[in-house]
Amino acid sequence: MSLETLLRQAQRPLLIAHIAPDGDAIGSLLGLGWAMKELGRWPTLACADPVPESLQFLPGHDEIVSRRKGDEDVIVSLDSSDLLRLGSLYDQELFAALPVVNIDHHVTNVRFGSEQLIEPTAVSTSQIVYDLLRRLDWPVSPWSATCLLTGLITDTRSFRTSNTTAEALRTAVALIEAGAPLAEINGHLEHDIPMGVVTLWGRALSAARLQDGIVSVEVTRKLLRECGVSGGDASGLVSLVAGVRQAQIAVLFTEKPDGRVEVGLRSVPGVDVSGVALALGGGGHRQAAGCTLPGPLEAVRDTVLAHLAQMLAAAQPELRALGGSDSDA
Amino acid sequence: MSLETLLRQAQRPLLIAHIAPDGDAIGSLLGLGWAMKELGRWPTLACADPVPESLQFLPGHDEIVSRRKGDEDVIVSLDSSDLLRLGSLYDQELFAALPVVNIDHHVTNVRFGSEQLIEPTAVSTSQIVYDLLRRLDWPVSPWSATCLLTGLITDTRSFRTSNTTAEALRTAVALIEAGAPLAEINGHLEHDIPMGVVTLWGRALSAARLQDGIVSVEVTRKLLRECGVSGGDASGLVSLVAGVRQAQIAVLFTEKPDGRVEVGLRSVPGVDVSGVALALGGGGHRQAAGCTLPGPLEAVRDTVLAHLAQMLAAAQPELRALGGSDSDA
Repeated sequence: MSLETLLRQAQRPLLIAHIAPDGDAIGSLLGLGWAMKELGRWPTLACADPVPESLQFLPGHDEIVSRRKGDEDVIVSLDSSDLLRLGSLYDQELFAALPVVNIDHHVTNVRFGSEQLIEPTAVSTSQIVYDLLRRLDWPVSPWSATCLLTGLITDTRSFRTSNTTAEALRTAVALIEAGAPLAEINGHLEHDIPMGVVTLWGRALSAARLQDGIVSVEVTRKLLRECGVSGGDASGLVSLVAGVRQAQIAVLFTEKPDGRVEVGLRSVPGVDVSGVALALGGGGHRQAAGCTLPGPLEAVRDTVLAHLAQMLAAAQPELRALGGSDSDA
Repeated sequence: MSLETLLRQAQRPLLIAHIAPDGDAIGSLLGLGWAMKELGRWPTLACADPVPESLQFLPGHDEIVSRRKGDEDVIVSLDSSDLLRLGSLYDQELFAALPVVNIDHHVTNVRFGSEQLIEPTAVSTSQIVYDLLRRLDWPVSPWSATCLLTGLITDTRSFRTSNTTAEALRTAVALIEAGAPLAEINGHLEHDIPMGVVTLWGRALSAARLQDGIVSVEVTRKLLRECGVSGGDASGLVSLVAGVRQAQIAVLFTEKPDGRVEVGLRSVPGVDVSGVALALGGGGHRQAAGCTLPGPLEAVRDTVLAHLAQMLAAAQPELRALGGSDSDA
């Protein structure tokens, strides 16, 4: 049975977004959920973790449950690259008994499920869901459009990620025309920084260091405690410093509660940080990668900076040939 | 003679962007300039101030001059709300002798010039220039498209300002289709933060204060000197803290070299800061306004915060009626 037929026939589908949900997970979940509800189906919208406060403006967010009901006929996984990412909602027996549709845009998707709609070139899973709704000729209501546009905006950092295409902007236009209020969505997404995060940014950035084209920032457990925020709140710091004109690489070291150190890496085009991340037991993309290492922080800093400096030195001739980062404004 | 006829007949137009040029000033200047050059005209592209380093990736930026040549047949002012904003390029005698076309999107445009194309609802002057090129049926080359898309992106903070419409996104799609490389443009625009600015952000944000719904940040002359940056480099701080969840108003105080204090104000929808700015001798919009006051900084801080607190207190019943900011995530 084709994926389209399966979805057309579904009456009580269980739609699941991944744990630690972001705007695209919740946006694609609600976007598809609204379309199905408007067709008279009885979807269960589920996520093992709660909806972040910043997304609690989305229509239908309060109908998302953390446990299934038990009478489902199809399972649809959204934006999740593997079954572990479904958290407590993954149930081996249930997943063996029902058709499982896997809708995702992560290149690392392990291709679970009986039906797959995986498009690594799509900027977001919300984009894939929008295309699917068009193909099925299902209506896109203002509610569905609002959720899908939120997914599109959050996964592209408002059309600024390097994979953003004219197609993504065209979809945004269509979603606005379907009733998604762009300015209102941006207002909600942008007015959501806890004051403790501002203090954290301040104290971490005051101590930021730039050496040999590498800008680095450190967030200790002590700092997180004093600012009253979690490690996840610090993650935006690496994008902030990745814009430093003199840097080819940005690194963020975040101490976890258990003492291990999370390492976030960003680089300019032409410099590939995925190799260093992989060598240290992590992974990722050329321009955005990461790994987690046993502490203490000082040792991790020395190891990672040494690896990066070595990689940069080896890459310099190639960078110069590209007319690369030295002359790059 | 209509504006369109005037531009069609122009052979040696003098195109001028405003002083302290931003992405939209330079983008609209070059966007129109490229179109005219491709039609075999001899435009002079001028700006009294140098092109910022962050925009020196735009094709043709090195052909922008700070003085006119002297054989012009038409003057076109771009993105400038009055003649003073043209700096040393404004020449009373010349402007009286030649037709002057005034193309702008600022609501505060004083409507100088013999022909005016002023559209306050347009998100950027680059958008107006694009529409004009289409109306004239002039070609939009990849070079022109690159410059116009840069203006569109910078003036909308990448489609995040509240005035961004589906029309702006549609124009972005058309410009990408005409050859503007979106990812490359964003790469240039984002990788342009001097390291000193990161230190400045750090030190200013460490001392940010939140009280009664107002978040405030201060940048002293001493801090600017120690970080080796200028007051203009600090201006982004107010947008950073405007996102604080608990704040309805964000204020940035920046000490100028002469000791006066520049006050930047931002507010959430429903809170109007333009009245306070106006009362203190400044001006602006409801959600973004400012003024400049004689120092010292401490006195300015006390005055401005008192005005804002009073205004907020008076606005509270109205805000509650709107279901406003308290419950607003």
